[in-house]
Amino acid sequence: MTTAILDGARLLGRLSALGAIGRDGEGRLARLAATDADRAGRAALMGWMEAAGLSVTVDRIGNVFGRWSTPENEAEAPLLLGSHIDSVVNAGMLDGCYGVLGALEVIETLKAAGVRTARPIVVAAFTNEEGARFAPDMLGSLVFVGGLDLDTALATVGVDGARLGDELARIGAAGTVDPGHFRPAAYVELHIEQGPILDREGVRIGAVENLQGISWQEVTIEGTANHAGTTPMTMRRDPGLAAARTVAFLADRANRSNTPTVATVGRMRFAPDVINVVPSRAVFTVDLRDPDETRLREEEAALAAHLDGLVAEGFRVSVERLARFEPVVFDVGLVARIEAAAAARGLSCRRMTSGAGHDAQMLARICPAAMIFVPSRDGISHNPREHTDAADLVAGAEVLLDLVRRLVEDGRRVIPLSENPDPSGFSEVSA
Amino acid sequence: MTTAILDGARLLGRLSALGAIGRDGEGRLARLAATDADRAGRAALMGWMEAAGLSVTVDRIGNVFGRWSTPENEAEAPLLLGSHIDSVVNAGMLDGCYGVLGALEVIETLKAAGVRTARPIVVAAFTNEEGARFAPDMLGSLVFVGGLDLDTALATVGVDGARLGDELARIGAAGTVDPGHFRPAAYVELHIEQGPILDREGVRIGAVENLQGISWQEVTIEGTANHAGTTPMTMRRDPGLAAARTVAFLADRANRSNTPTVATVGRMRFAPDVINVVPSRAVFTVDLRDPDETRLREEEAALAAHLDGLVAEGFRVSVERLARFEPVVFDVGLVARIEAAAAARGLSCRRMTSGAGHDAQMLARICPAAMIFVPSRDGISHNPREHTDAADLVAGAEVLLDLVRRLVEDGRRVIPLSENPDPSGFSEVSA
Repeated sequence: MTTAILDGARLLGRLSALGAIGRDGEGRLARLAATDADRAGRAALMGWMEAAGLSVTVDRIGNVFGRWSTPENEAEAPLLLGSHIDSVVNAGMLDGCYGVLGALEVIETLKAAGVRTARPIVVAAFTNEEGARFAPDMLGSLVFVGGLDLDTALATVGVDGARLGDELARIGAAGTVDPGHFRPAAYVELHIEQGPILDREGVRIGAVENLQGISWQEVTIEGTANHAGTTPMTMRRDPGLAAARTVAFLADRANRSNTPTVATVGRMRFAPDVINVVPSRAVFTVDLRDPDETRLREEEAALAAHLDGLVAEGFRVSVERLARFEPVVFDVGLVARIEAAAAARGLSCRRMTSGAGHDAQMLARICPAAMIFVPSRDGISHNPREHTDAADLVAGAEVLLDLVRRLVEDGRRVIPLSENPDPSGFSEVSA
Repeated sequence: MTTAILDGARLLGRLSALGAIGRDGEGRLARLAATDADRAGRAALMGWMEAAGLSVTVDRIGNVFGRWSTPENEAEAPLLLGSHIDSVVNAGMLDGCYGVLGALEVIETLKAAGVRTARPIVVAAFTNEEGARFAPDMLGSLVFVGGLDLDTALATVGVDGARLGDELARIGAAGTVDPGHFRPAAYVELHIEQGPILDREGVRIGAVENLQGISWQEVTIEGTANHAGTTPMTMRRDPGLAAARTVAFLADRANRSNTPTVATVGRMRFAPDVINVVPSRAVFTVDLRDPDETRLREEEAALAAHLDGLVAEGFRVSVERLARFEPVVFDVGLVARIEAAAAARGLSCRRMTSGAGHDAQMLARICPAAMIFVPSRDGISHNPREHTDAADLVAGAEVLLDLVRRLVEDGRRVIPLSENPDPSGFSEVSA
């Protein structure tokens, strides 16, 4: 077998170089989608793609593709790798960029080593994954898989009032190719975990087998404002207390079992918000996540029953659904191959759930998909303190390299992943 | 015994007339201390006092006194009645005014009926009871009893930046008499309950036997902000959850016993206040009240122990004391006489605790003091919906009338209240 050794220093250098693009006057990274900073980042990326001899295409929603194909494999469905290069405000430099530049590094390594592949390999950088400027997040990959109409997506107005289509045209990122111009044989995304599990457990590689379903609700509980001094406890209908008991209820449910359910109340407000007045109203958000749709629905139902109990006590309760995504199950064949690749490198590995959303969940609608995670120090992301050790960054890319070789090396057309026992693993599972 | 029948219509008419003074363009009542509206209210009050033949005095902190004395009782310590006529913003027209005008009505009735009294009777309207413009509240009565230095009080700067001394001079309310120019034999204050107990229970008269001690604290709990999706429940240190459990802890303690303890969390904030981020910080206020100082300290200690437990769990906790007042015990002899007066009128009556602060708590430092409460519909006060039925307003004034007669009628010098078993009832109990 041809030797193909990944250039870790080049990968790390490009991560630093891309991470230097889009800094504000105080050194904070903010490369929001379709901004001038994004234009500069795209220019650097496309420059590296072209230097590597890839064929660069931009589609009409601004997704960037770098394709390596040969006359022999040109007709085959490509293996797609990738992630995104847009960022949040005050971001770290790994989220998304690591997956794009890691994939580029893998392709470049295989190409330079003269490895023959049964399929083209494409690296993608999807538009507006973060959603920090335009909603929804993962917009580019959503449009690519046909989950959102192109014209609707282009008409999206950002938090700054700008229209996405105008902004893409302005920065020269409005391509002419229709989104979804090819159907991948499979999709693999390399990413930092953005959570604490691998770091805390000292595990080097995460083989991501699924992605949590997300339920966001805003709950308003109304009771009766009363004087804090003159109203006996028994004559109160205190929505602040009811909200507090609901927070504890959610945490107790999530804690009591061995399930991966997570429940978070991130926002909480009392009205009138006066020290000596029993609140008249409490408003709070509930973020419920679970990789299992049945269990997620059970948690939603438990919350609803709890709130019904408050209504029975005389509170007025209203619930606004802010967002709802079903869980995504990744391809078990791909997950098993990630584990095998890590093992072959002597790297500790565990199966895990992605708690955050990723472009991979969109691609999972149309092809076998999975993700490779590397540790995030202290689980911190979306923050300048986001950090993954260089050795882990290189190790993750090497696992991707080995996986890709196994998937596409000439004579070993292992896609479709025939041993995949669960065809729904890559069918459309999200509304 | 001379017949003395109170003129209920005159009392209600004056309440309406005073309540019409200090309305803004939208009809909202705001007669804040030492404003032009207060000047107008004082002018009306002093006009009524003078028309009733009272000797009107204003002291250097602006407290207004209307004195009825005769050559025979001139040398005796007067019986003091009163309350305040300043208001909060968007107030009702009963809070305070009822006690002042009710006392004036009582004096006028006795005087007109030719009742001979063993002591002078004085009606007082104390400056800045509400504290809506100048802090602290109950400032005028505090200065009167010697609890706050006059110059310090006059130098107080209000929420609008004005100096109290300047404002009193501007509205002609800076008198020349030193505060505390007489020592009352006793003090009785007639007031609406501002709470729901009498209204809910259908009781006509409250004989106020004590006034709650108040403990105000602001608690800050700091933990670790984390991604709501990627951080397992077991790896969280969620100060929002810790705050919620503290709210429930306080309510459970206050509810579990038969004590009158009330615990209120009126303000609550999470930071960074984002739906998908486990909070890094929760800040909330705790308002604890109890008429018994020992029990109030126990509640404070229980909260402190609970917070120590959070520190042991790894949270950072800080507590700022915002206010602390010891409970006030009113004179048991006066309270018993209020009950007797209500019973003689065939009015249902119950002993009760004042949950709010009143000038009576200041007067209790220097003489036997107590309060008479009448029902507040739905417990509402500090609001235009503040309401007491006319019959209840008149009944409360009649109880005050009968009590005053009993306390001062010639030949029955019942003050000092010799049967008072608890001399600390009117000693200095508040720091």
